[in-house]
Amino acid sequence: MTQASATELVISPEQFLEHWQGHRALTRRVIDAFPDDKLFTHSIGGMRTFSSFAMEFLGMAVPTLHGVVTGEWKSFESSKATTKADLLKQWDDATAEINRMWPTIPAGRFQEVDTAFGQWKMSIHALLHYVVDNEIHHRGQGYVYLRDLGIEPPHFWER
Amino acid sequence: MTQASATELVISPEQFLEHWQGHRALTRRVIDAFPDDKLFTHSIGGMRTFSSFAMEFLGMAVPTLHGVVTGEWKSFESSKATTKADLLKQWDDATAEINRMWPTIPAGRFQEVDTAFGQWKMSIHALLHYVVDNEIHHRGQGYVYLRDLGIEPPHFWER
Repeated sequence: MTQASATELVISPEQFLEHWQGHRALTRRVIDAFPDDKLFTHSIGGMRTFSSFAMEFLGMAVPTLHGVVTGEWKSFESSKATTKADLLKQWDDATAEINRMWPTIPAGRFQEVDTAFGQWKMSIHALLHYVVDNEIHHRGQGYVYLRDLGIEPPHFWER
Repeated sequence: MTQASATELVISPEQFLEHWQGHRALTRRVIDAFPDDKLFTHSIGGMRTFSSFAMEFLGMAVPTLHGVVTGEWKSFESSKATTKADLLKQWDDATAEINRMWPTIPAGRFQEVDTAFGQWKMSIHALLHYVVDNEIHHRGQGYVYLRDLGIEPPHFWER
């Protein structure tokens, strides 16, 4: 039996977008599961609030994709939402923008190495995985915040 | 400029293995960061302990890869470690086994759809991402447990 080669397709660009947006849809439900005030106030062990995590995700998502598409790195800046409604609005705007920009990623780009935001030198596939993984990591922490508040979080496996 | 096509390589099999093992190396450091007793006793909001999460990761990793390589699905069963040393030993054994089995994944397998463990019908790339993402998710929860215990966790970005 032939074995998987070095140029074998693990996941296609369309499948990676679905992977990313599936996670982003779950994160949106986690944001929405927090009471309006606790989203901006609750934390454990001196950590940041879940709204702070979500604003970081927003600050990374579209600016990273802009750099992936154009090779130009804008400043990395967290969102500054002050209400849950504002945060969810910004989330939905980013969802649409990611879907709009994704098909414009140049051929061969995923395997290129770039220095994201002038600071992080890595391949584009690793950078995009990092953006998703960072969201999974902090969202998992949000699950603990919700449990600590006595709130049942959304199922992890639903995207 | 040509745009990324549907058959474009996002990440190669070797790169995905590095992605997975990088996350597993971080999880090993998180296991090791827990005091021996707290690993098996500490939790928040009625959640499972971190040792329970780690035993779940062990129960998923090699059995999933076995199914990916052979198409045969053994029973899904969590590890049953009772000490940190035992857990770390099982972790290192799994690390070596994953490295040994990975190159035997058949060509074209990542894009096939299978019913993992007779229960979860999905493409192999999505299944493998799920195994990694589930580990990131619960490991992030372990970070909260550590912070709650006053312990500084390993850096998320170090793999």
